[in-house]
Amino acid sequence: MGNIFGQAFKITTWGESHGDAVGVIIDGCPPGIEITAEEIQADLNRRKPGQSEISTQRKEGDQAEITSGIFDGQTLGTPISIIVWNTDAKGKDYEHMKDVFRPSHADYTYQAKYGIRNWKGGGRSSARETIGRVAAGAIAKKILKQMFNTDIFAYVSRIHNISSEEFTHELTSVEIESNIVRCPDPIAAEKMINAIKSARKNGDSLGGIVNSVIYRAPVGLGEPVFDKLEADLAKGILSIPACKGFEIGSGFDGTFLTGSQHNDQFYIDNGNIRTHTNNSGGIQGGISNGENITISAAFKPTATIMKSQKTVDIFGNEVELQGRGRHDPCVLPRAVPIVEAMISLVLIDHALRHRGQIN
Amino acid sequence: MGNIFGQAFKITTWGESHGDAVGVIIDGCPPGIEITAEEIQADLNRRKPGQSEISTQRKEGDQAEITSGIFDGQTLGTPISIIVWNTDAKGKDYEHMKDVFRPSHADYTYQAKYGIRNWKGGGRSSARETIGRVAAGAIAKKILKQMFNTDIFAYVSRIHNISSEEFTHELTSVEIESNIVRCPDPIAAEKMINAIKSARKNGDSLGGIVNSVIYRAPVGLGEPVFDKLEADLAKGILSIPACKGFEIGSGFDGTFLTGSQHNDQFYIDNGNIRTHTNNSGGIQGGISNGENITISAAFKPTATIMKSQKTVDIFGNEVELQGRGRHDPCVLPRAVPIVEAMISLVLIDHALRHRGQIN
Amino acid sequence: MGNIFGQAFKITTWGESHGDAVGVIIDGCPPGIEITAEEIQADLNRRKPGQSEISTQRKEGDQAEITSGIFDGQTLGTPISIIVWNTDAKGKDYEHMKDVFRPSHADYTYQAKYGIRNWKGGGRSSARETIGRVAAGAIAKKILKQMFNTDIFAYVSRIHNISSEEFTHELTSVEIESNIVRCPDPIAAEKMINAIKSARKNGDSLGGIVNSVIYRAPVGLGEPVFDKLEADLAKGILSIPACKGFEIGSGFDGTFLTGSQHNDQFYIDNGNIRTHTNNSGGIQGGISNGENITISAAFKPTATIMKSQKTVDIFGNEVELQGRGRHDPCVLPRAVPIVEAMISLVLIDHALRHRGQIN
Amino acid sequence: MGNIFGQAFKITTWGESHGDAVGVIIDGCPPGIEITAEEIQADLNRRKPGQSEISTQRKEGDQAEITSGIFDGQTLGTPISIIVWNTDAKGKDYEHMKDVFRPSHADYTYQAKYGIRNWKGGGRSSARETIGRVAAGAIAKKILKQMFNTDIFAYVSRIHNISSEEFTHELTSVEIESNIVRCPDPIAAEKMINAIKSARKNGDSLGGIVNSVIYRAPVGLGEPVFDKLEADLAKGILSIPACKGFEIGSGFDGTFLTGSQHNDQFYIDNGNIRTHTNNSGGIQGGISNGENITISAAFKPTATIMKSQKTVDIFGNEVELQGRGRHDPCVLPRAVPIVEAMISLVLIDHALRHRGQIN
Repeated sequence: MGNIFGQAFKITTWGESHGDAVGVIIDGCPPGIEITAEEIQADLNRRKPGQSEISTQRKEGDQAEITSGIFDGQTLGTPISIIVWNTDAKGKDYEHMKDVFRPSHADYTYQAKYGIRNWKGGGRSSARETIGRVAAGAIAKKILKQMFNTDIFAYVSRIHNISSEEFTHELTSVEIESNIVRCPDPIAAEKMINAIKSARKNGDSLGGIVNSVIYRAPVGLGEPVFDKLEADLAKGILSIPACKGFEIGSGFDGTFLTGSQHNDQFYIDNGNIRTHTNNSGGIQGGISNGENITISAAFKPTATIMKSQKTVDIFGNEVELQGRGRHDPCVLPRAVPIVEAMISLVLIDHALRHRGQIN
Repeated sequence: MGNIFGQAFKITTWGESHGDAVGVIIDGCPPGIEITAEEIQADLNRRKPGQSEISTQRKEGDQAEITSGIFDGQTLGTPISIIVWNTDAKGKDYEHMKDVFRPSHADYTYQAKYGIRNWKGGGRSSARETIGRVAAGAIAKKILKQMFNTDIFAYVSRIHNISSEEFTHELTSVEIESNIVRCPDPIAAEKMINAIKSARKNGDSLGGIVNSVIYRAPVGLGEPVFDKLEADLAKGILSIPACKGFEIGSGFDGTFLTGSQHNDQFYIDNGNIRTHTNNSGGIQGGISNGENITISAAFKPTATIMKSQKTVDIFGNEVELQGRGRHDPCVLPRAVPIVEAMISLVLIDHALRHRGQIN
Repeated sequence: MGNIFGQAFKITTWGESHGDAVGVIIDGCPPGIEITAEEIQADLNRRKPGQSEISTQRKEGDQAEITSGIFDGQTLGTPISIIVWNTDAKGKDYEHMKDVFRPSHADYTYQAKYGIRNWKGGGRSSARETIGRVAAGAIAKKILKQMFNTDIFAYVSRIHNISSEEFTHELTSVEIESNIVRCPDPIAAEKMINAIKSARKNGDSLGGIVNSVIYRAPVGLGEPVFDKLEADLAKGILSIPACKGFEIGSGFDGTFLTGSQHNDQFYIDNGNIRTHTNNSGGIQGGISNGENITISAAFKPTATIMKSQKTVDIFGNEVELQGRGRHDPCVLPRAVPIVEAMISLVLIDHALRHRGQIN
Repeated sequence: MGNIFGQAFKITTWGESHGDAVGVIIDGCPPGIEITAEEIQADLNRRKPGQSEISTQRKEGDQAEITSGIFDGQTLGTPISIIVWNTDAKGKDYEHMKDVFRPSHADYTYQAKYGIRNWKGGGRSSARETIGRVAAGAIAKKILKQMFNTDIFAYVSRIHNISSEEFTHELTSVEIESNIVRCPDPIAAEKMINAIKSARKNGDSLGGIVNSVIYRAPVGLGEPVFDKLEADLAKGILSIPACKGFEIGSGFDGTFLTGSQHNDQFYIDNGNIRTHTNNSGGIQGGISNGENITISAAFKPTATIMKSQKTVDIFGNEVELQGRGRHDPCVLPRAVPIVEAMISLVLIDHALRHRGQIN
């Protein structure tokens, strides 16, 4: 249960980290959309391990194989199945933690809930599962671009205590992809990279914040009262491994303002209704208002560290655990395409839902 | 669309602020649960307007009428319908804003999305809709208490820049209800009350933070990978009007820690697996681990203020709007039972889903 | 659970036969549709008890009260709540069967499933619950008429062994409503009425068949592979109390044909693709093809009879039960608007779903 | 849309007939169930083409590959992915009908709905899609057997006008599998086989009826009012290609009885509540009562025939179509495991849903 996301554009992901493969089924993709495997691959490459010196050194091509739903280069309106085979799954690396619950991992809770778990590399709880999200998100992103000219960009805005500058111009993917940490501020980016390298050297890990901006989201997306756009965005973002917080618009900082400071006053701009400020973050009453949608997401430091830690085993003994294996000292650079994917999936789902309901 | 919440314990709310009534249907409440109208009323009274000098002075008894699903004092397993009639709905108060979009309200987005809106008091976007959530939440809360001895408490931890102390003991509802702002720190509470009164005098409004703690949540709730417990909590909380942010466990602050500082090391406590720290906030890998579940939610300052604001009307003119009507200068004290309700609804839904799936 | 129907146009019904009221919430009705209480009432009057000498003599006005979702005569896009208060609920009539399971009723299975039941008049299992369906169906029917000029007619085609003639012309509601049994063949209708009266005199009951024809259904409705149009129609129809069978197009009789006899050959009619025959019943591969959609539904004889029957009580004793109370000796005349409602609900749901998905 | 079935035990099927592969994802399978690929294969072999002289001669091994969700021979509680690669997909066989709509096939409606279709072998509308259903059904069947000792058997009860005898004893899979037409009456079976061979020789096809009996279904399954057990069974069965009718219990024939003849009177049998007759077909008020659940399903004659037929092409011309390719002259023998699968999927879904809701 719980492996399906969306109502109109539904994705189902499957697969364990060290099983045969991982994948995704999309049910509800409109027909007649041109999609190539390359477009999907481009986003998978941004997520894949081993892509830089600050990511895990597991070597996976993460090659997407489309096995249904596309015919002569176009979507059929039938389920799209995408499979990525696991090729560098070294289950042996995990033998030593077969019976041990790694602190702040899902080992204990999976065992407690299901009474069984695939202990190799985190099994289903591994972020490897997000491959399916990114593949589906690439399709969602393309449709949103075609339909509304919407652009969705996430980027790293803080690693540990190193913050990016704030951006007032419209970001581009070139800026974001210009460095391996995916922060469009090159000076901060360099500091971040060094901090991550230093954390790895210490056998430790770092967290931080991923910001997102959605440019040219159509007006009218969001289904109050429960499926408000920000509510579904929050769910999508919080379902990403290691995410601990979500903000829309002014977020927590906005609570220090008074109403008269916080309210976004309307004006007319070339016949369009716009707001002077955007503390609402592009959403009012659960529905997009046409301004940029702005989101922040907090990611905790990676739970897997190389330091020795106290923990317990499945037999109820207190034990010492020494980290091993190949891991990311900081997940944020690779989380960027995952955040973009979840946002894209929420938006396309709401776009299709809205289109069905209008009069 | 979007007016149904939950998968196993499904609630549907209905009603506009100045329509005839508001209400809720619960589909999926287990049979044989003893429920009285009084138990539901107790929580509705904590939410209702006019309850104190710092809330809106609209006078509504908010009297719950149960019209189905309960027989001889017990739930039947059939849909429970609860209706609250609107008695003090002064639509006239809103005549002056019939054609005007109030800044940071849902007026514009509802009009843009639906092409029509009930302009009286916010219609469906009014927090009056949350009556149904609180009524359903009272039932959810009772079942959780009976099943697992779970307690769910929310409280105001900050108003504007006035913070409550941090609590290390187990909170009680008596403490929380001991003052009208619902902050268990009496010294901070008094300052908060004064700040709210002062904001009202200035025709302005304040925001802040509601914290929540869930004591004795059962281990094993949450359905990875998308319906992780924190993801559904985030959705539930962000679906509350005026909410702009959500944190679980260490949240945004936790991103300043390293992995070795942040990880919650396990130990054995009387045969139970526990963690020394609780940065995870009671959830690991999307599944509850038996520790307290801790949540923060940011609420923006109320959009309705008595100051003059610039805005536009539905004819595309830029106009000046002067606030009128009866409003809360700060929604947080009344948001407390709503937050508790949403948390209760998420937990009962996951408890019933989990029970269906176990082997 | 199980009280919500539809995915895009979702209805939730609530209420027990002898509780305070019954009702329905519609979530997903498009905004801006003009609806009056009278339009809803017209269909409720066709379903209501006491409408003729061959229906139950329970006296209920079945007056629909719209409590949300409609403003200035138009739908808002928010949930529409419709309530019908029970006014002639004589719970006392059922005292004698409080502890006894009526044969072929839901008494035993409700008790077994839920451990509790409202024994007054069948509680939730009463066909009184279908009031909500008919009210929602009236709205669905109106939208389908506006959108596509679709007409949905059901009628009684057989009572016991008395069959109506077969109709080759397009039926009208005037024909169907021209007699109290709702059979457009006046000669058969008279025989049917007499048979029902005679069954009532004998304390017995009759079943039969309701046929339906959907004229001008749009091409393209239905979502293979599971939500095929005929699959959702079958579910909708089989969810009506007392229904035991469903056919689409040639149904069971078609199995006596060979493929070359059964296939519906295509031809071009004024530029439109049509079929010479319609054994498919307007649906091919789960998707409507623009031909008339034809459905048959079997309804068993009413379980409540005035004869003495052997049964058991809740204490495990074998007992004799003598029927009492006010009942329909044949449900089919009143089932006609219910069948139309379920068909309308399925069609509008698929129309909105399809509209959301097209490219 | 529409490729997901179930609420608690959800399956998603994917794949086109002449694409790379077909498959299924199961979301909601309880953990800790022992499943082998062989158990799944056994049912796939009963469905696969080329299994006998009366089925299509397409040669597919239909070998199931489990790529996730099972670990050390047990289910993990995570999604189970099963893939079957298409190996004998001769798309060339279909070149001649690329632009032509085969009568009573889904060619036209798919083209009309989606604006595009995979014209090779029916694409998504091919019964090849049901491989995923049968694979998932095999798992469902096993769990039902383990949990409740439930047995689910379907068999061919009529081909064209050749009927099987009626069975009063409890059927076994050995009887059903004792001949290639899957009719437990050996005399009728031989006639049926000859009729099918003769139809093939004539380039024609036959339909008929598949009966099903569910032995030892637990009491209490079914979620009124919409998700009644018979309603979900009807949907499941009608979603199978070529199905045109559904009956539960007495079905259409029962409408010729009076209430006093049709009612199933209760008695006590060794402390259990039983009924003397079973016109209800094991379901009352939408909930199973512990008696055998009995279902009939009508399957039309295969649309693909070798005779020349009149039809139209995608350019709007009336054309003549001569059938070619490898096809079943009668789908019923291969439909038997598909019917069993759909019934199993409905039952397991309701069993898990019920377990979640009870008090």
